[in-house]
Amino acid sequence: MRRSIRMSLNILGSMALDSVETPYGREVDSLGGSASFSALAASLFCDVRMIGIVGTDFPKENMKIFEERGVDTSAVEVKDGATFRWRARYKHELGHAHTIGTEFGVFEGYLPDRNSIRNGESLLLANLDPDIQNWLLEGEAQPGFVACDTMGLWIKEKKSSVLKLLRRADLLLINDAEARLISGERDLIGAARYLRSKGVNMVVIKKGEHGALFFTDRIHSMIPAFLLENIKDPTGAGDTFAGGMIGYLERAKGNINDMLLRRALVYGSIMASFAVEQFSVKGLLQADAKAVKGRYKRFLELTGF
Amino acid sequence: MRRSIRMSLNILGSMALDSVETPYGREVDSLGGSASFSALAASLFCDVRMIGIVGTDFPKENMKIFEERGVDTSAVEVKDGATFRWRARYKHELGHAHTIGTEFGVFEGYLPDRNSIRNGESLLLANLDPDIQNWLLEGEAQPGFVACDTMGLWIKEKKSSVLKLLRRADLLLINDAEARLISGERDLIGAARYLRSKGVNMVVIKKGEHGALFFTDRIHSMIPAFLLENIKDPTGAGDTFAGGMIGYLERAKGNINDMLLRRALVYGSIMASFAVEQFSVKGLLQADAKAVKGRYKRFLELTGF
Repeated sequence: MRRSIRMSLNILGSMALDSVETPYGREVDSLGGSASFSALAASLFCDVRMIGIVGTDFPKENMKIFEERGVDTSAVEVKDGATFRWRARYKHELGHAHTIGTEFGVFEGYLPDRNSIRNGESLLLANLDPDIQNWLLEGEAQPGFVACDTMGLWIKEKKSSVLKLLRRADLLLINDAEARLISGERDLIGAARYLRSKGVNMVVIKKGEHGALFFTDRIHSMIPAFLLENIKDPTGAGDTFAGGMIGYLERAKGNINDMLLRRALVYGSIMASFAVEQFSVKGLLQADAKAVKGRYKRFLELTGF
Repeated sequence: MRRSIRMSLNILGSMALDSVETPYGREVDSLGGSASFSALAASLFCDVRMIGIVGTDFPKENMKIFEERGVDTSAVEVKDGATFRWRARYKHELGHAHTIGTEFGVFEGYLPDRNSIRNGESLLLANLDPDIQNWLLEGEAQPGFVACDTMGLWIKEKKSSVLKLLRRADLLLINDAEARLISGERDLIGAARYLRSKGVNMVVIKKGEHGALFFTDRIHSMIPAFLLENIKDPTGAGDTFAGGMIGYLERAKGNINDMLLRRALVYGSIMASFAVEQFSVKGLLQADAKAVKGRYKRFLELTGF
């Protein structure tokens, strides 16, 4: 019953079966999706409720993975049909995924249950069709803090929906290529200025293995990515970053200041570092509070001067 | 007479006339060359003696620029013939220069005067033919601390000479693409391990706008690049980084510890940030001690968490 009175971080996003090939291996129908990575990362910091949809072919073991991390999956619909599937290949340069196929499956026509969220609760709109993201925002319940992520596909195909989202969101996470695409600016400070002019106060620009930038009305911050030797599969790194960052902020709720915002960026980066070391969510599942603390300490050493 | 008894940082490298085009402008026969950028950057921190060669067509105003920064140019030969010239174009992505032409001019057959350096003095071998770099090292005078830089051209054409250089040098500065090229490793930690196994104890891997990594037997360090909005011409950024870093170390000579080495990386990055804001050495010439101090403070703010 505890969960029914606690405030949770709601995470809307995709739950998927990913088939990914990198120079370091290949997996078929592994657990993936923006909500999956984000929720597992955030679950180390706060209570999480996932909002999404899967098909009847979604393995029960996957659902168990969330439950074992204490993630509330009661707002995940199970619908007759196929789970969202993504197939991709990474070349030796791991920076860029070459999408081979995307099958939306049960996500076609999906509209989340607006009653899933309650007034004042935080909301992370992980990467998903911006019309679905906006739909959840326009319900009766008014979420508190709203963070969102998006991707190039939506910027190209539904730019006005993405811009609409920015008018309502408090924080946007976006990668460097996407920030350049939506703003038309090569320079990332200029891109962040453009995005903030569209209504979102805080902007995180993720640069993959090169770290991240963070902009608010008072903050310009830059952090390197956690230095790793063995990156096997970058899938979900950005989603994990988002979950780690917003989860960390949720834990500190009501006590957020500039330094805490900057530190949240570091926790996002650290969580992403676990995700990319293995395929699917495996690396993320090995991260516990102690491992996170260890990497935070190491991050301090790596960046000290 | 003061200069004759003080220890100097000796900088061997190219002195050139650069013709560079970027999306932000175009210059013809501007002051360039690895030694030029390195020396101007280092001169803010320590006494500098340049070692190099120019043709009789090298403008007197250029020589004056060094002298006004207190750089000792007595070891710069002036020879009948043409100064080294480099022509290049940068596309909208400023990361990579497309070389249009290189004319070595008086650098063909150049061997520096080994008597230019004195026992125990520090030496920065800025990017240049590794056979010339090695030649200076093999003289009677034994320099103290030796830092060196190189580039893809020499790795491709004279790899054994570059490797020979690494056996003698204490510190190598190299960019990420070059580190991958020489080591055959995609991963930069692996590349640094390869380079260190070749005899050079300290390795800086420069990642351009993405910062730098630093490896010694005890240190793994990563710093972001100074966040800039207006980059006009990246030419000389790496050379300037080297000059700033080694100049800072030279100033602290005899008192070097791990934290100081890490901080030297930040000063390298800060000096490079001035260089890229304008064409040729113009940005660098605007940097004085106060401006450097200001950017160091700003760097602390940008990277704090």
